Amino acid sequence: MRILIIGASGTIGRPLCSALEPRHEVIAAGRKGRDATVDIRSADSIRALYESVGAVDACVCVAESGALDRFEDLTEAGLLENMRGKFFGQVNLVLIGQHYLNDRGSFTLTSGIFADEAWPGVTGGAVISGGLHSFVLSAAIELKRGLRINAVSPTMITDSAEDYGHLFPGMVPVAMDRLLAGYTRCIEGRGTGQILRLYGA
Amino acid sequence: MRILIIGASGTIGRPLCSALEPRHEVIAAGRKGRDATVDIRSADSIRALYESVGAVDACVCVAESGALDRFEDLTEAGLLENMRGKFFGQVNLVLIGQHYLNDRGSFTLTSGIFADEAWPGVTGGAVISGGLHSFVLSAAIELKRGLRINAVSPTMITDSAEDYGHLFPGMVPVAMDRLLAGYTRCIEGRGTGQILRLYGA
Repeated sequence: MRILIIGASGTIGRPLCSALEPRHEVIAAGRKGRDATVDIRSADSIRALYESVGAVDACVCVAESGALDRFEDLTEAGLLENMRGKFFGQVNLVLIGQHYLNDRGSFTLTSGIFADEAWPGVTGGAVISGGLHSFVLSAAIELKRGLRINAVSPTMITDSAEDYGHLFPGMVPVAMDRLLAGYTRCIEGRGTGQILRLYGA
Repeated sequence: MRILIIGASGTIGRPLCSALEPRHEVIAAGRKGRDATVDIRSADSIRALYESVGAVDACVCVAESGALDRFEDLTEAGLLENMRGKFFGQVNLVLIGQHYLNDRGSFTLTSGIFADEAWPGVTGGAVISGGLHSFVLSAAIELKRGLRINAVSPTMITDSAEDYGHLFPGMVPVAMDRLLAGYTRCIEGRGTGQILRLYGA
């Protein structure tokens, strides 16, 4: 398969590329991507990316993340700005990419635990991931040509626990191996409209 | 209780006002509201509403709805425009209203079945309601002064089945009585962070 990975140099992106490269042709993209550059906050940049890389069988996004916020002074403008990358950026990768991917190609997006579990300071992260989950359900029945779409919804990753663990006491991190297995299942499996929730009590 | 109902002249708003008025002081608001006017797409209009009506114990929103869309030519701008009323408008009612409601007051928002169940032509409705559900979970743990927040998530209402039923074949409508009971439970009960899903197989 030709697999486009957006956010390829990030915490998930690097090991994901390493895991996929032995079996697939990986196109590593990002703001300063090895093989292609893209800023998913810009529709023009997304369109230019798809035009430049040519036909792909899978588009995987592990770029962008929600910012922390303070509910008591959160504004609509601040929330919208927070949603620009991880929500609207990933939605746009699908809305635009539906016209570029090969038949039976797949989109794999990244959401997160805050869709389902409230934690302090992450209202933006909550609406980003909750909106993405419903988008994936809807897109799965709308996409044509056998295109598939799924989301991997991680909790904090073990690799990030040292940096972020103090913000989320009691959150049980997910191991990178399990996370990579989730992405691989979305890319190489046959499912669509699935939200892989990589967290539990 | 003093209860502010936004969208008071709509399909749900009219019977909801009738159900609450025997026991409560209802302030009927909307674009052309009986007691107060507001356009929830505008933060300034929301702020002016709260300033004009004074202290309230409950804010209930049954205004706005998601528009139908076509996935194959849906754009980020079109999706955002669709989200302006029912998503960002309701979010803004809470973000601004948290500074106005009486202690232990409550917000009751309206989402919908498309958060959880995909149907053709309602990707906007899906992300609006999915985002609202996660927002309610998050806001419930963030709000201060004992403020509560819940959402009523209806499927198609029996009263609308004649107009919309042909769009959603096989969708079992919910009776207005059950819907009104849901709003009443949110307003007069003690729950917070609840999504009342008024649909099932």
